[in-house]
Amino acid sequence: MTTPHLSKALATFVSELKIGDIPQEVIARTEDLLVDWFGSAIAGKGSRPVETMTQFAQNMGGFNTANPGSAEILINRQNSSPFLAALANAAASHVAEQDDVHNGSVFHPATVVFPAALATAQTIGASGEDLLVAAVAGYEVGIRVGEFLGRSHYKTFHTTGTAGTLAAAAAVGHLLKLNPTQMLHAFGSAGTQSAGLWEFLRDAADSKQLHTAHAASTGLMSAYLAQSGFTGAEHILEGKQGLAAGMSSDADPSKLIDRLGSRWTIAETSFKYHASCRHTHPAADALLQVMLTHHLKPSDIDKVETLVHQGAIDVLGPVTDPATVHQSKFSMGTVLALIAHYQFAGLQEFDQHFRDQAICAFRDRVTMILDPEVDSAYPQRWIGKVKVYLNSGEVLEGRVDEPKGDPGNTLSRAEITDKAMRLAAFSGGASPTEMSAAIERLWNIRKQSKIGMLIS
Amino acid sequence: MTTPHLSKALATFVSELKIGDIPQEVIARTEDLLVDWFGSAIAGKGSRPVETMTQFAQNMGGFNTANPGSAEILINRQNSSPFLAALANAAASHVAEQDDVHNGSVFHPATVVFPAALATAQTIGASGEDLLVAAVAGYEVGIRVGEFLGRSHYKTFHTTGTAGTLAAAAAVGHLLKLNPTQMLHAFGSAGTQSAGLWEFLRDAADSKQLHTAHAASTGLMSAYLAQSGFTGAEHILEGKQGLAAGMSSDADPSKLIDRLGSRWTIAETSFKYHASCRHTHPAADALLQVMLTHHLKPSDIDKVETLVHQGAIDVLGPVTDPATVHQSKFSMGTVLALIAHYQFAGLQEFDQHFRDQAICAFRDRVTMILDPEVDSAYPQRWIGKVKVYLNSGEVLEGRVDEPKGDPGNTLSRAEITDKAMRLAAFSGGASPTEMSAAIERLWNIRKQSKIGMLIS
Repeated sequence: MTTPHLSKALATFVSELKIGDIPQEVIARTEDLLVDWFGSAIAGKGSRPVETMTQFAQNMGGFNTANPGSAEILINRQNSSPFLAALANAAASHVAEQDDVHNGSVFHPATVVFPAALATAQTIGASGEDLLVAAVAGYEVGIRVGEFLGRSHYKTFHTTGTAGTLAAAAAVGHLLKLNPTQMLHAFGSAGTQSAGLWEFLRDAADSKQLHTAHAASTGLMSAYLAQSGFTGAEHILEGKQGLAAGMSSDADPSKLIDRLGSRWTIAETSFKYHASCRHTHPAADALLQVMLTHHLKPSDIDKVETLVHQGAIDVLGPVTDPATVHQSKFSMGTVLALIAHYQFAGLQEFDQHFRDQAICAFRDRVTMILDPEVDSAYPQRWIGKVKVYLNSGEVLEGRVDEPKGDPGNTLSRAEITDKAMRLAAFSGGASPTEMSAAIERLWNIRKQSKIGMLIS
Repeated sequence: MTTPHLSKALATFVSELKIGDIPQEVIARTEDLLVDWFGSAIAGKGSRPVETMTQFAQNMGGFNTANPGSAEILINRQNSSPFLAALANAAASHVAEQDDVHNGSVFHPATVVFPAALATAQTIGASGEDLLVAAVAGYEVGIRVGEFLGRSHYKTFHTTGTAGTLAAAAAVGHLLKLNPTQMLHAFGSAGTQSAGLWEFLRDAADSKQLHTAHAASTGLMSAYLAQSGFTGAEHILEGKQGLAAGMSSDADPSKLIDRLGSRWTIAETSFKYHASCRHTHPAADALLQVMLTHHLKPSDIDKVETLVHQGAIDVLGPVTDPATVHQSKFSMGTVLALIAHYQFAGLQEFDQHFRDQAICAFRDRVTMILDPEVDSAYPQRWIGKVKVYLNSGEVLEGRVDEPKGDPGNTLSRAEITDKAMRLAAFSGGASPTEMSAAIERLWNIRKQSKIGMLIS
């Protein structure tokens, strides 16, 4: 009996994916995620690492007003090639920590899929529907590859960077109409460029935005190369010297094809409500619930224990004294301190208060404890549990089964619009009028027979 | 006692490296390797995967005659940005299997260092001396990182692709005059993009040239980003969630700083004589020696056992029935068959004969056996041992301690020139007159105060 060729089954599925295969509510969710991503991309304007990467991308293309390029760089309205625009936009949408996340794969799909897909769609004159189907393809691949690579992978590697390469390749490959064989070659080229290590975080280094830029651009390149006949490994994911062999010790090949065609992983994706690493959100929402229910003030609280899953400890553990706004979004203590003081850990709250004495004092009284119930439910479910020790001696427990933004506690379209408007206002990446009009066009993207520029 | 920060020591060393630090014979060897690399780059013209990658690089830049770009793409004399030219040239120089290799790190330095360094040097108007010192810096880093990552890394990962990112970053970083702190940031950005899996080889896929293109371009990007203040992990190599943690089980940090300043790793680099994977060369030379010594014809031979190191088995083992010219260069049997019939396994021999019935028949009678002596000397020494079983019943043994091209059995400048001329003639990438003139200019590169185009 021959071993089933699972990566080929996945490649075939995404190559052959048609709008008619996809339930309407899944397409609607894709539109939600597109608008949400757009807000995150615009939010990147003014961020030093994002501006630096964008400048590099522009310097390395030869585009100018006489020869403007076909793909839009969102934070500055310049055009470039799809390769370089994808690089810039993927960096932009991953700095505010407001871009979407898929719980089970611990992977941020939008920030690698949409930059690559949008740049390609604009270049080839694809329709809004084409873009949406391509996005579904990208999410399917990235999420499944993330689940395949598993928890052991995530201990060291940034799954968004590694699986993201394949996600971008799938989305672009779909737009370029790669047949199943070509799509598998695109996977092969993408997987052999998969990269991204967590080591950067302990130093508050800029690499997170580099990882997404790298994934989106190399994934796009992989699809374009496949279109031109460039070949890749046929078992890059599951082969003896492939991704799982090199970067995982608990890879689960069945995840690659799990209920393909009936399980739409894009519909399982969560919006980020707070502007921080999602590992902080379950505890943040649980604390908020306790404080609102019991009408607590920060000064009522002696300390907080957060009962977490291992992923939270892996990622957030090294961050004890955050030096930058971005790094503080990976500090459980900072997030809870902002929740306690402002009931929200949003862009403004981080930007203005992350180093406040009161916030730092509260931060240092927050601990993370590995909780068996929470950890065994992870990563499919991200349960929030806290123990709040009051100065009075009382101990209050809080619990949230689905943090705000999870599919069972999702954002409405009004909330998504509102969040995107807030992001644009925060960065100044678009005026309210511009942003409002752009969002409106995006809500109606299915009607566009040819994607144009989003904001320029 | 604080742990020494070894990657910082290495970054500091290459940042501060001056021409006066480097022995004259090491500079001379660098010139040798530059000319040798140039031949390999020109040899890439006409190769399908190389032309495909080059086309992609050109399409993704906006350069044209009105706006030509500052860096030279060697196979077609078009200019582009340094990022895209490095990508194209690194693909070009790694297809003929004639580019240099460092035994101890099992790493191909030239094909990732020179494309990135040359593109940068041309762009910023650096001198010939600047280019040579930068190359030394790149070789130092790549080789040391390769040795650091070790044999376990090489089982799954293509060290040229992974360590190559850092090698390119170091060379470009030196040209851009990064200070030690910036150089360490460049390492951080490069290491977090390190990628390249061996899985492609069993399918004869095109990824090898993609790996070098990826390493050279992302390494260059890392250095440029660092120049603009972009930060990276401070311990990307040795940290808890860094390269060694993710991709090696026998990493040796002492290799990073081993005799820094007195051990010049570039001088340990080998030229490739035969146009195949260097794991085949020791046995190839040993067989050649036996056949010449005993005046053997192929028809005298029943079978050949090659006594090899583990790296040969890891890389060449999957290749049993090579489907393409390139894949056949990773077939021990094919290489020895060509040696037996033509006394040389060069570009012409592979191209014209790799599928000949006589070659295939001989190929299938060649086996690889792990040899304790050879394996324990590896990777510092690549000893060649063969057992040749004659039809007469006699068994002859051959042994070569240093295959042709190794530092102890090196190529003369005349041989290097001759090889480069042969490579240009094979691909048609330059006429004999053009090639001869370009090589002459390269031999005198130290006199150039500003690097110009090499062949255009």
